[in-house]
Amino acid sequence: MINVEILRLSHRIHRDIRLSSHVALTCRAFNCSKMYYSGDKDASLENTLIGINKKFGSNFTIEHIKNPERLINDKKNDDYKIIHLTMYGISVKKKINVIKEEKRILIIIGSEHVPGVYYGLADYNISITSQPISELSALTIFLHEYFDGKELDIKFENAKVRIIPQEKGKKIINS
Amino acid sequence: MINVEILRLSHRIHRDIRLSSHVALTCRAFNCSKMYYSGDKDASLENTLIGINKKFGSNFTIEHIKNPERLINDKKNDDYKIIHLTMYGISVKKKINVIKEEKRILIIIGSEHVPGVYYGLADYNISITSQPISELSALTIFLHEYFDGKELDIKFENAKVRIIPQEKGKKIINS
Repeated sequence: MINVEILRLSHRIHRDIRLSSHVALTCRAFNCSKMYYSGDKDASLENTLIGINKKFGSNFTIEHIKNPERLINDKKNDDYKIIHLTMYGISVKKKINVIKEEKRILIIIGSEHVPGVYYGLADYNISITSQPISELSALTIFLHEYFDGKELDIKFENAKVRIIPQEKGKKIINS
Repeated sequence: MINVEILRLSHRIHRDIRLSSHVALTCRAFNCSKMYYSGDKDASLENTLIGINKKFGSNFTIEHIKNPERLINDKKNDDYKIIHLTMYGISVKKKINVIKEEKRILIIIGSEHVPGVYYGLADYNISITSQPISELSALTIFLHEYFDGKELDIKFENAKVRIIPQEKGKKIINS
């Protein structure tokens, strides 16, 4: 049984609210089970996800943590592999087939500056291009590669509304 | 000769600075030639990209525009196809092979609310999941599919510094 969790480091309420909420929404839609985040505790971020779950389904959860290093060590003791996404790491193309063998993973994404300790704690430091992009773009590509694109077809059973794809305009139905 | 350009609608300086700059950085790294943006003109956003180009290479440009509908019509007259990314559109998996035949494309991404006129102007309204995610996640997956993952291997000839991928830590060299 695959379980993919995310650790978002150093969330800052005012500066990061939109980016962190987009990270969480992408994790939810792309088949991750949980996002942990450190930095500022943010009720608005958490409530956004609760509201989306209620409307569109999924059991995705979000949890604020104070000590990310301890979380990582706990996950390692629980046989998770730790993937740190960084522009300085090895190309995702070279490592994705090995990482796909791992069924329980914790993916770490930072904001601008990630302390060196996380490079050491990670089992894999992985880059999505060796260029400055975005932790959200990097995470999106990583998940797409890890799940072989199947994450694009997920349907959530407990959805109240569903969107029916249209050539033009919008179609939303109540489930 | 492939030319991919982006139109980012309705940028708001304080609210969107990080997200719009991450969009622009991703476009640059993923082989797009130009990003147009409407809404607030933002020198900080433009200077971020100029600085990244100087250091890491590429001729990616960014331009503020006042009238996005006129830009779209100009591009249509210039034989561009218009792709609008929206959770209400047809799945990227169903349309990507047709869209790959198009060599000059303008991709429109909005922020929370996109006026209906853009759905009508677009040649293709395309969804990356029928779930709320992020315009940046959607754009990232679209580009990855359009370029068949080759965008991850781009090297910029005019770079001053290059990152050498490492298992642990960081290695940066001057070109």
